[in-house]
Amino acid sequence: MGKERSYVLGVDLGGTKIAFGLVDQVGQVVSDLIVPTHPDDGAAGVIERIVAGLRQVAAAAGDRQEIKGVGMALPGVFDGDSGRVLLSANLNWRNVPVSEILAKELDLPLFLENDARAAAWGEKCFGHGRQVENLLYIAIGTGIGGGLILGGRIYRGHHGNAGEIGHMVVAPAGPRCGCGNHGCWEALASGKAIASRAAALLAAGRPSSLREIIDRNEELTAFHVATAAAAGDQLAQEVMEEAAGYIGLGIASLVTIFDPELVVLGGGVSRTGSLLLPTVIQVVRQRALPPAAGDVQIVLSSWPEMAGVVGAAAVAFARLGLLDEGGRELCRAC
Amino acid sequence: MGKERSYVLGVDLGGTKIAFGLVDQVGQVVSDLIVPTHPDDGAAGVIERIVAGLRQVAAAAGDRQEIKGVGMALPGVFDGDSGRVLLSANLNWRNVPVSEILAKELDLPLFLENDARAAAWGEKCFGHGRQVENLLYIAIGTGIGGGLILGGRIYRGHHGNAGEIGHMVVAPAGPRCGCGNHGCWEALASGKAIASRAAALLAAGRPSSLREIIDRNEELTAFHVATAAAAGDQLAQEVMEEAAGYIGLGIASLVTIFDPELVVLGGGVSRTGSLLLPTVIQVVRQRALPPAAGDVQIVLSSWPEMAGVVGAAAVAFARLGLLDEGGRELCRAC
Repeated sequence: MGKERSYVLGVDLGGTKIAFGLVDQVGQVVSDLIVPTHPDDGAAGVIERIVAGLRQVAAAAGDRQEIKGVGMALPGVFDGDSGRVLLSANLNWRNVPVSEILAKELDLPLFLENDARAAAWGEKCFGHGRQVENLLYIAIGTGIGGGLILGGRIYRGHHGNAGEIGHMVVAPAGPRCGCGNHGCWEALASGKAIASRAAALLAAGRPSSLREIIDRNEELTAFHVATAAAAGDQLAQEVMEEAAGYIGLGIASLVTIFDPELVVLGGGVSRTGSLLLPTVIQVVRQRALPPAAGDVQIVLSSWPEMAGVVGAAAVAFARLGLLDEGGRELCRAC
Repeated sequence: MGKERSYVLGVDLGGTKIAFGLVDQVGQVVSDLIVPTHPDDGAAGVIERIVAGLRQVAAAAGDRQEIKGVGMALPGVFDGDSGRVLLSANLNWRNVPVSEILAKELDLPLFLENDARAAAWGEKCFGHGRQVENLLYIAIGTGIGGGLILGGRIYRGHHGNAGEIGHMVVAPAGPRCGCGNHGCWEALASGKAIASRAAALLAAGRPSSLREIIDRNEELTAFHVATAAAAGDQLAQEVMEEAAGYIGLGIASLVTIFDPELVVLGGGVSRTGSLLLPTVIQVVRQRALPPAAGDVQIVLSSWPEMAGVVGAAAVAFARLGLLDEGGRELCRAC
């Protein structure tokens, strides 16, 4: 294997878009592509788009022989051994044998991993986490997911469900969460929570530039709120600041529990990083236990749009035993 | 080594008492002893009592040659490599070279471990956790501490401070905690929280048999509250039920985060197990995420008084490489 070049294909399958990349052994994305998911087309239609996308980004490899496998990051519950997606609510998939279908089309081994966990592993192998043993990747998007790298390894838990940090309770009497409980972290600190809180303040009659969006009958999103906040809208700034406080509160608890070297923030909400990060860091420094409170590094993902793709590729490299080239022996098989 | 018998000495050094045991390779406590700590005597006095206690329980071994080492469980911060206790607030110790002193007196290697972490490892090696890879040991006493066994190994975190679960925030506007923050889990669910809550209700004039204790100028403890609750005192029952709810709430979050097979409750408050356990389990089933919510086992410690001793012994056995005898290969070096 020595000096031979190797690539893997990474795919990050989300509910609204699919991101693809041809990734080399040092984590460089050589070619990439993003297409809409259209989950309403059903599993067959989505898989067709995945195959087409993979073929398109694969074309950038000089020699197809150099592509060793495919890593796929996805939300939901899957059986890694059989390569079957058991349930993905976002995709409306149930018991889809995705490995089998892709192996037939592409003649490459496929490795599945939960999206936040893949992103965590990507940071460990190729990103901010190369020098650390313990890192938490926190994906703040519509919901909040987590990937835990502990003692240099991906931690999955008994049912492969570890890292569902969005459902730790941070305020028992807080707002109702999609899971049915009250006061889950993601009911207070996710993109959805930001949008809901802004909508509630608008409904209460507070003035804000965001009213235009409602008046246009558009769905108000965290992106709108973040954009308005950046432009100086007071209500939006208040909502973002409150969310940052809750994001910090949850991270403080996680830092106290795990004593990690590093916390990486990813997901859509983290792309508004400069709005959130100072407050998040301040709350963690104040609320977490020393010495971790003062020492822990809190950074934004190395790849704002491609964290899942690079992570999926890193998972494939690790499973293929190809990560120890080029000084990557830090990354043990995951 | 094959059929040779081996023992280690386990010692659990607490702020109020020191427990000792001579422990064999299947985790049986062959002889034991509990003495008061009297931390006011200073480190020298306490270490003298430790040496005397260890000699006393060691006498039960037929042949002193069979004793291979000493494991010590303790609260506070220590340097495992040098065997030095850097800081223990409960003991009022600062930079005490305990390994060096004990090695001189006993001519045995000493292994230090945080008390909750040692107890977790004891459950993994010799107790409820023998068949599992992921278990949380939760010590509910004056405060709340945790020991995390993840992927079959002790997880310590970057500064060796992981598992400080008592300081995760479960109610941001809750009562002030000893650490300076508000709404930490242990400010709502520990023995100290139980005593404070009962005292507050008494001060507000609520009738209760607990008033006798106050009237006798005794310090009201969680033990008093639990005893009164068991005897039917309504105020005490209310306080215990509220604490059980908070204990369950925190465990639910931890189960969601870690997806473990097993949660073991230890510490003084857990000795009132039958009062608390049904509510704790009910809250976890309701609040944690499935499938862990329904599957996770929640049990009381295998050794109500000796968890730290057996755990410290298990740590010593593992460090000495003696745990793989008798089918204990499940327990990898910790």
